[in-house]
Amino acid sequence: MPDILHRIGITSSPDAVYTALTTVDGLANWWTRDTEGDPRVGGVIKFRFVPGGFDMKVLEAQPAERLVWEVVDGPEEWIGTHVRFELKQEGDFTIVLFRHEGWQEPVEFMYHCSTKWATYLMSLKRLIETGKGEPAPDDVQISDWH
Amino acid sequence: MPDILHRIGITSSPDAVYTALTTVDGLANWWTRDTEGDPRVGGVIKFRFVPGGFDMKVLEAQPAERLVWEVVDGPEEWIGTHVRFELKQEGDFTIVLFRHEGWQEPVEFMYHCSTKWATYLMSLKRLIETGKGEPAPDDVQISDWH
Repeated sequence: MPDILHRIGITSSPDAVYTALTTVDGLANWWTRDTEGDPRVGGVIKFRFVPGGFDMKVLEAQPAERLVWEVVDGPEEWIGTHVRFELKQEGDFTIVLFRHEGWQEPVEFMYHCSTKWATYLMSLKRLIETGKGEPAPDDVQISDWH
Repeated sequence: MPDILHRIGITSSPDAVYTALTTVDGLANWWTRDTEGDPRVGGVIKFRFVPGGFDMKVLEAQPAERLVWEVVDGPEEWIGTHVRFELKQEGDFTIVLFRHEGWQEPVEFMYHCSTKWATYLMSLKRLIETGKGEPAPDDVQISDWH
């Protein structure tokens, strides 16, 4: 099954990156402003965008190291997939290895989501490094699919 | 074998996008300024960056529709892989379906290249829509690996 892979480096501590990934306030400032729910293990976080959204169940949350979500509601192609963030420190950078895994087929929507994830991860980097991300609905438009 | 997938939409004609993908001048304005070679089918284009570069043999070039390169020299993980651009028109947009296929393993370098390709494709979009891309060495830095 194909996966979406990304790697960014953020000049910050793993703790700061982990906080931006595991708090409603942090997530709302780089992914989508319309974020609510329980970001603890076993909780469900609801991310909403103009065209729809995703409900993520938190499967694993290892401070400053690892976060794994399962998509429990959203577009059909996403349901049951996992979104994984692995953090590690390299010099002045916290490296984020991102993987959205378990897609059934490399459909055109997966191509879109891959590019879109890249722009959101750059938003996460910008949030932590400059204090200002580009979450939806002010996210970078990449195509007619937004 | 895992692939890198991306999708962007450019508000322009497929012909304009194809030109940016198949001329030395076009390529130099969104990927890397240090580009030279023969962009015709059977030719080899040399793309150079500060840390190294890629030699691409042009396998297919179907005007306004498809371009396929084979990596004939560069980092070991890239050699023998294919880079594919498929173009189609959707309303005011030319959609670019991008695929870098044939990676042996999802190594950390592949995660990096996936994110980096996304930023270069956004550079291609910006070049065509605004006249100014962000090719290397003025490309967007995403991490310690640049």
